[in-house]
Formats: sequence, structure tokens, C-alpha cells
Amino acid sequence: MHSGTLTVPTKRHMELVDITGQITEVLTESKTHNGQLILFNPHTTAGLTINEGADPAVRDDIIAGLRQIVPLDYRYRHMEGNSPSHIMASLMGCSLTIFIEDNQLVLGTWQRVFFCEFDGPRTRKLKWQVINNP
Amino acid sequence: MHSGTLTVPTKRHMELVDITGQITEVLTESKTHNGQLILFNPHTTAGLTINEGADPAVRDDIIAGLRQIVPLDYRYRHMEGNSPSHIMASLMGCSLTIFIEDNQLVLGTWQRVFFCEFDGPRTRKLKWQVINNP
Amino acid sequence: MHSGTLTVPTKRHMELVDITGQITEVLTESKTHNGQLILFNPHTTAGLTINEGADPAVRDDIIAGLRQIVPLDYRYRHMEGNSPSHIMASLMGCSLTIFIEDNQLVLGTWQRVFFCEFDGPRTRKLKWQVINNP
Repeated sequence: MHSGTLTVPTKRHMELVDITGQITEVLTESKTHNGQLILFNPHTTAGLTINEGADPAVRDDIIAGLRQIVPLDYRYRHMEGNSPSHIMASLMGCSLTIFIEDNQLVLGTWQRVFFCEFDGPRTRKLKWQVINNP
Repeated sequence: MHSGTLTVPTKRHMELVDITGQITEVLTESKTHNGQLILFNPHTTAGLTINEGADPAVRDDIIAGLRQIVPLDYRYRHMEGNSPSHIMASLMGCSLTIFIEDNQLVLGTWQRVFFCEFDGPRTRKLKWQVINNP
Repeated sequence: MHSGTLTVPTKRHMELVDITGQITEVLTESKTHNGQLILFNPHTTAGLTINEGADPAVRDDIIAGLRQIVPLDYRYRHMEGNSPSHIMASLMGCSLTIFIEDNQLVLGTWQRVFFCEFDGPRTRKLKWQVINNP
């Protein structure tokens, strides 16, 4: 097994950052031909998702949709004021499992892998494992 | 490791399709006794979930609930008009890990595995891996 | 591979129960140094999530947020009256994959692992697998 940590700098309060290039590099270097790449986000106001990457409007719409779905002005108890960000983190989830075939990520035609920033901008960390299953 | 692709034809614009039978067949044929079955949906307007299968009303209520939760008429930027479907895809997630014991899926009494169609009807693909962990 | 079942007693109708201590014990006893711990919830009105554990207000806000997000009084078809609980279960997901390094769970500074009760109080079961990947 190979493992490590990536750095993901984010630029806005809330945004989806395309990390497909970064994790493809990790996979290529691992020289793993078949198995799984697992990502784990160690932050509680961020998440991970896979969605369309061709039209950048989709990632903006996902953020806009989440801001409509999660009440932003509810009388939350957590005093830091970022409870909506914690809720979005749980809605997206903190881990992804992606198949590896012939040292390539198995993604659909339109799929890209996104780090979801819900309380930025910050410099985030992302843990990964590449598992070999011949 | 065994791996492959299933075909899931869907019949409605939005629906939960019970795929438990199809993946049980895949597992039986793999003759894998202990480990994990991982599913990966390569589409960006579909998802995967596990929920109650006994009463078909539950799967209808999940679709009805998601249609209440995700704004359908918001001023989204993506011009294809299916942004709500992309958002539902991210809310459900695109991958599932299910335990295998004695060549059986480990599911709760009421649990069934569902392919979530959010922009159909279409003929969808579903990737799977069966991992052996003795 | 090691595997087993934990018991999680819940005390309220909806609550997030911190199970980090219980799964840390499972991991310690397995003596597994590197790999993954996978959790699987076999119930259809419960889920799993990872979020902030330092301030107990965050877990209350996640429940409060979900109760705002999922319509509680919609004309659902399922006659048991717990359709919102089923929808919350699908929103949170029923499985988690956590990395293991040096016989420790790899979690962020503020992260704790929560069992999400959405239709309690009940005595719940939780399945786990600890996978060794040297």
C-alpha cells in the first residue's frame, strides 16, 4: 500500500476545487495497476464529491444549491457561526473510493473529483491511500 | 480481485431501482467468501444508496423528499436544466462498500441496494469490484 | 481481516452518538498496523458521519439542520410515519472508511465518528471490518 497527504489551497469561502489532476499524479507515481484509491478529508467544514467537471457552472450550482438547502440563518447552538459548513460537510461525506484499472482512475466521461471547501479560504490537507489488488 | 460492469436500465425521470439481485449474482459467481463488494456509479446525474426495500413507498418517498429538499426552479447557471439532478447525485454519493461473509452480502433485514436515477430514463452502467480478504 | 459487530444503545428520537472510543478499542485489539477500518450500519433509519466532536453543540446543530432540511410533515406514502428518518439515513450514508496508521485511526484534530440515530431510542448494531494493508 502507498499513502500520503496532499495540500489543497482554497480561494473562496465556499467552492468545489477540482483535484483530479493531483490524485492522478499520485496514482501514476505509485505504479499501482489494479485496486482502489481512497481519499479521506480530515477537516470538519469540508467534504469530497465526484460530479461533472466539463461545465464549471455545475460546481457553482452545487454550492448554490447547498446554500439553499442548508438554513444559513437558523438559531444554531455552535457559537463559531459555521454550523451550516459542518452540516454541508456531513451531507457530502469525508471519504471517496475510486477504482484503479491499468494505473488509471476509473471515472465516467464527465466525472471529476472535487474537494468541497465550505469554510475557506484555507490551506487544507487531504489524506490518500492507494491499495494494490491484483 | 474480480471486477466488471452491470447495466441498469431505468424507466422514469427519477426513481430508485433495486439492484440487490444483480449484485448478489455477481458475488455468487465470484465465489468470494470474505471481503468487500464495492460499487461505483460513473454518471453525474445518478447515485447509489441503501435503504428499506420491503415497502416500495419508501423509495418513492426518498425521491419525493429529495425533490422537496433540492430547489427545482432556482436560477442555476448550468444551461442543461438538470442542476437539481447533479445536486441529488452529490447528496447520495457515487460509491458503496458492502461487506461479504460466506459469499453473502451483509445487509440488514430491511436493507436493499438502490441505483438512484435522477435524470432518466436512460440505460446506465455500474462498475463493481469484489475484493477477497480472508 | 478482523470483523465483528458493536452494540450502540441510543437514548433519544434523533441524536448523534460518539462511537470513536468503541471503534478505537476494536482497532487496538485487532493489532492491525496499517490498512482501513470500515463501518457498516445495517439499519434503514440510522446513518454514520464524521464531524466535530469538541463542541457538543455541533452534533445538536447537525440534527437541527437535518430537521429543517428534510420536510417532516410532507404527505409521504410510507404509512409508518418515519419517512423523514429514512431520507436522513440516505443523506448521511450507511458506511465509512477510515485509514489506519501505526494501529491508530487517522482522524483530523476535531474529527469524531458518530452513529446517527434518526428513529430512536433503540439498541442498534454496527458492523465493522479491519483490513490489513502492509
